[in-house]
Amino acid sequence: MKKTLTQKILESHMVSGSYVPGNEIAIRIDQTLTQDATGTMAYLQFESLRISRVKTELSVSYVDHNTVQIGYENADDHRYLQSVAEKFGIYFSRPGNGICHQVHLERFGRPGKTLIGSDSHTPTGGALGMIAIGAGGLDVALAMAGEPFYLTCPKVIKIYLLGRLQPWVSAKDIILKVLDLFGTKGNVGYVFEYDGPGLETLTVPERATIANMGAECGVTTSVFPSDAMTRRFLKAQQREGDWIEIRADRDSEYDRVVEIDLSELIPLTAKPSSPGNISPIRECGPVKIRQVCLGSCTNSSYKDLATVAQILKGKVTHPDVSFIIAPGSKQVLENLARDGHLADLLSAGARLMENACGFCIGNSQSPPTGSASLRTSNRNFPGRSGTLDAEVYIASPEAAAASIITGKMTDPRDLGIPYPEVSMPETFYVDDRMILKPKDAEAASAVIIYRGPNIGPPPTNDPLPIQLDGVVTLKVRDNITTDHIIPAGKRMKYRSNIPKYAEYLFEIVDNTFYERAMKIKESGRHNVIVAGLSYGQGSSREHAALCPMYVGVKAVLARSFERIHAANLVNFGILPLTFLNEEDYDRFVQGDEIHVPDIRNSLSGPGVLQIHNVNRNIVIEVSFQLTERQKQILLAGGALNRR
Amino acid sequence: MKKTLTQKILESHMVSGSYVPGNEIAIRIDQTLTQDATGTMAYLQFESLRISRVKTELSVSYVDHNTVQIGYENADDHRYLQSVAEKFGIYFSRPGNGICHQVHLERFGRPGKTLIGSDSHTPTGGALGMIAIGAGGLDVALAMAGEPFYLTCPKVIKIYLLGRLQPWVSAKDIILKVLDLFGTKGNVGYVFEYDGPGLETLTVPERATIANMGAECGVTTSVFPSDAMTRRFLKAQQREGDWIEIRADRDSEYDRVVEIDLSELIPLTAKPSSPGNISPIRECGPVKIRQVCLGSCTNSSYKDLATVAQILKGKVTHPDVSFIIAPGSKQVLENLARDGHLADLLSAGARLMENACGFCIGNSQSPPTGSASLRTSNRNFPGRSGTLDAEVYIASPEAAAASIITGKMTDPRDLGIPYPEVSMPETFYVDDRMILKPKDAEAASAVIIYRGPNIGPPPTNDPLPIQLDGVVTLKVRDNITTDHIIPAGKRMKYRSNIPKYAEYLFEIVDNTFYERAMKIKESGRHNVIVAGLSYGQGSSREHAALCPMYVGVKAVLARSFERIHAANLVNFGILPLTFLNEEDYDRFVQGDEIHVPDIRNSLSGPGVLQIHNVNRNIVIEVSFQLTERQKQILLAGGALNRR
Repeated sequence: MKKTLTQKILESHMVSGSYVPGNEIAIRIDQTLTQDATGTMAYLQFESLRISRVKTELSVSYVDHNTVQIGYENADDHRYLQSVAEKFGIYFSRPGNGICHQVHLERFGRPGKTLIGSDSHTPTGGALGMIAIGAGGLDVALAMAGEPFYLTCPKVIKIYLLGRLQPWVSAKDIILKVLDLFGTKGNVGYVFEYDGPGLETLTVPERATIANMGAECGVTTSVFPSDAMTRRFLKAQQREGDWIEIRADRDSEYDRVVEIDLSELIPLTAKPSSPGNISPIRECGPVKIRQVCLGSCTNSSYKDLATVAQILKGKVTHPDVSFIIAPGSKQVLENLARDGHLADLLSAGARLMENACGFCIGNSQSPPTGSASLRTSNRNFPGRSGTLDAEVYIASPEAAAASIITGKMTDPRDLGIPYPEVSMPETFYVDDRMILKPKDAEAASAVIIYRGPNIGPPPTNDPLPIQLDGVVTLKVRDNITTDHIIPAGKRMKYRSNIPKYAEYLFEIVDNTFYERAMKIKESGRHNVIVAGLSYGQGSSREHAALCPMYVGVKAVLARSFERIHAANLVNFGILPLTFLNEEDYDRFVQGDEIHVPDIRNSLSGPGVLQIHNVNRNIVIEVSFQLTERQKQILLAGGALNRR
Repeated sequence: MKKTLTQKILESHMVSGSYVPGNEIAIRIDQTLTQDATGTMAYLQFESLRISRVKTELSVSYVDHNTVQIGYENADDHRYLQSVAEKFGIYFSRPGNGICHQVHLERFGRPGKTLIGSDSHTPTGGALGMIAIGAGGLDVALAMAGEPFYLTCPKVIKIYLLGRLQPWVSAKDIILKVLDLFGTKGNVGYVFEYDGPGLETLTVPERATIANMGAECGVTTSVFPSDAMTRRFLKAQQREGDWIEIRADRDSEYDRVVEIDLSELIPLTAKPSSPGNISPIRECGPVKIRQVCLGSCTNSSYKDLATVAQILKGKVTHPDVSFIIAPGSKQVLENLARDGHLADLLSAGARLMENACGFCIGNSQSPPTGSASLRTSNRNFPGRSGTLDAEVYIASPEAAAASIITGKMTDPRDLGIPYPEVSMPETFYVDDRMILKPKDAEAASAVIIYRGPNIGPPPTNDPLPIQLDGVVTLKVRDNITTDHIIPAGKRMKYRSNIPKYAEYLFEIVDNTFYERAMKIKESGRHNVIVAGLSYGQGSSREHAALCPMYVGVKAVLARSFERIHAANLVNFGILPLTFLNEEDYDRFVQGDEIHVPDIRNSLSGPGVLQIHNVNRNIVIEVSFQLTERQKQILLAGGALNRR
């Protein structure tokens, strides 16, 4: 049978399941990556597995999110991450070395391999012909421990690229066109597989821009064939030996095929406030631009910035525009410095930020009130810039350069100058000394992990008890989000410290919850939460399960669950139970004692449990829908205990 | 009579008073500078003067403090500053163009001129042979309006430099030696005037390092002669025409003369947590260094960073050291980029921050908990780094480079390599396009000042009323600091918005004060504060007078005042009155009504006022010690109304 590229890579890594789209499969993971904002918890979870060394081919710990470092917490987290990497055989990319996805592409990604990373833009790696998927920190921890990664076997859409981009049109316009075609919803469970003669002119960093923003469509990942262009990039990175050719079989079958003629594309933008709100730049109407930001994990490569440098050479930033650059990596910045492009960018008035996520995650360079900011990054959600009423436009580096000069949203073709064709260097200046190699096993065993006051103990859980002796510690209404469960914002700096972070559980719902739950836990009983419809909607953050686990929540009874949160609850050993009869929700009152005599054994039976509400002296039926694997996780007290 | 350099410049600018050390004199101000953290209020005050154009020879508005921009406030402030500069004839140095003192030295400072700046390190300009003094925002606003600047005529100490620095010893070691000799206290009212054959080898940026940190001794300013070295620097800046020779007369008399033989100096450091805690580096004992920060308004010049680049060329940052650079200006960075030094710094592992104050003011790059950070900046007060228990060492760029390599506090002579003698460029690459020139008067009049939600209306006050009908809105104890009066920290972002900032008056003392004071103000009566000893100690911030003015405080009755705060109260039209009999403090209770029938006329009489406490039906005597000028200010309702 003819195979897609996706199928080839997944099948060659299959540990269990069979290649049937929609079915759960498990694959072996070759590489993992983490960034610092999610990494500390991933490594705390990894530590709790008590393994002396990672079992992947390669694991890399990056620091790119919290590099502004206001207060000791971030710097302490960086020290923790560095010591963990040293001890467990993980490469450590030091703060300032760059954004995880850009550096991984440059120095570590390999065609044909599998990669999971605790960052939603991990699919960037698909530019190198690998299956690269964003995952939770727990998944990454388990993969580092040698466990397979479970996912739904994807359906595959082929995006067939024809022709050649016109001057002033670039990779960003391709992915904006894809977003225009597919939107930001309805693509879950799919992989975008790129192919066609149009690929011949697209360099790996350009492919990376496209793979990166597939995340905005919601697909599992995007993947490109590994071809001559891939080889050239790896050669320029002085690692041609990592190259293999891998591509889909000719005439392999796809769920759907979409054709894009590159020669027909024009400069596009994603208007406020969704990456799917696509418009030709010329049809935006007059937009005064107050800020232009170049960089983030998309469009921060050498070619992107060198192209802007060439356009701006001898010109100057418009007086009303603040022009920000956050290069993707130290390699990018050093190459720009060595060949003069950096001096030209500075001369034009660029404000040079550190090689890090920076402005893209709203932790710096918030634009002025009510102003328009044009960015080459990937997300323009309301408020993400740090300024609630700012209007963020997403566009190509070329469009950014044009707007830097004119001070308004400008189709770069309207600059009326020749398009500077920047070619990729034959060989990049490569210097990996800011990536610390793991120590050998003997030296590693002597490493002491650094834990500053911002690093809490690794969270642990006990196996599911034989019987549930619970108290309804909290009863909540419908539509409780993970933000209700555990707040982000100013509390997020405690994400490395579960005992501390847990103090803020349900802070905005009932700020007595933490104390009450801890008392019940200390009395040897279990905490139970009763909830309405769609419990756990919103952000997929694992802390909304991890922190409840810490305070001794053993079950949530809800009228219904949001899918990802239910899976997170299982992963951390908390039973997600659904009322068989929705009205039974009304038969529980906060403070009720509840009892399930033989909960362990009941799990192996049919999907229904009987719960005794002691105070009301009634028995209520709840259901559970769990795979065999999930039942084993629950019995063990969470995925970390299951091994 | 032979004259010191200080006397020459002051006398040539004298508007009133006579050159008698200790007497109040008034001088004409040629140049002003502001930075963004103090500048917004200075310009709001300037606006309230209703003048169409600054009357100085040159005024420059810099943005260097709040450039991280988390949230809209800072970006809004920058827009406000830019529009004010355009309207009133002020040069505007855009965010990212560099630190005020470094840029002013490069592009604007002129021998023989006077400069005041709303930043305590304004004396940096003394390196060019000018009298440059740090002042309050109000003083700067008044100087821009053409008013003279009042100061105590200083005593002058000559620091006579002999000999020549040994390799690995640099300007920082000279000023650390000065700090060792003079300490951080007891130098108020003095000027340090440098002279001697040792000057011949000291470039202007090196002199700037020395002049800058005179501020740490507490002197009024420091000043260097303008000589051939000054000429060479101005020529390299392509403004040789700004040079004049100016120096002290031979055999002029000084209050004191101190000799320093440069050839005897060795690498020094200011240990935690005072710039006066000086030690030879070799006598520090073993100190593990976790962070090295190069930059700030001292030691961020081209030569400083090029020297470090040369030392680090081919070497790499120690794995345990985070190596931060914040270049002093765009000019510095661009020159480093154009001649290859920047690439070498990046290659060695530098984390490049924006050209701004950055780490030095604790708004980024806080070091890890309990760690040692070596910095080339000028202050190592506890907590200033953003990490309360960090230990900050101040040392030269050479010592910084050595510690970057070794990971511990290292005398750079112990590196065992030849000292790289970096010479200053004959001509700097100069590009002033990030400094916006003021518009001509006609175009300026059409400019509309931008006021985002973070910019409040300019604060105004009424003339002193004929009679005082007051209420003791608050009675406080001894030793109330300006931090008690108006908190800094997280409230500081409201410094551009007096109505908002005023809401936090006495927040940590009595958070009902604001509401009570506003009610009294609205009822047409006056607020009066009764205080104990040493009222207004601590930081000299003007907001501790400006915000009380806003809520209608007309007098403070205290057992005693801190000197600077009393002067600030006068400047904003609030009477500082001292109990003649200290025990009378006990005869006031919060809420008492007080009455002074003819307060305006009483001011012109002898320094005693009678205050009627209506509730107690007693009359209390208080004293005031005011110059004629201060009386006029009070009658006018503050210095801004006096013109």
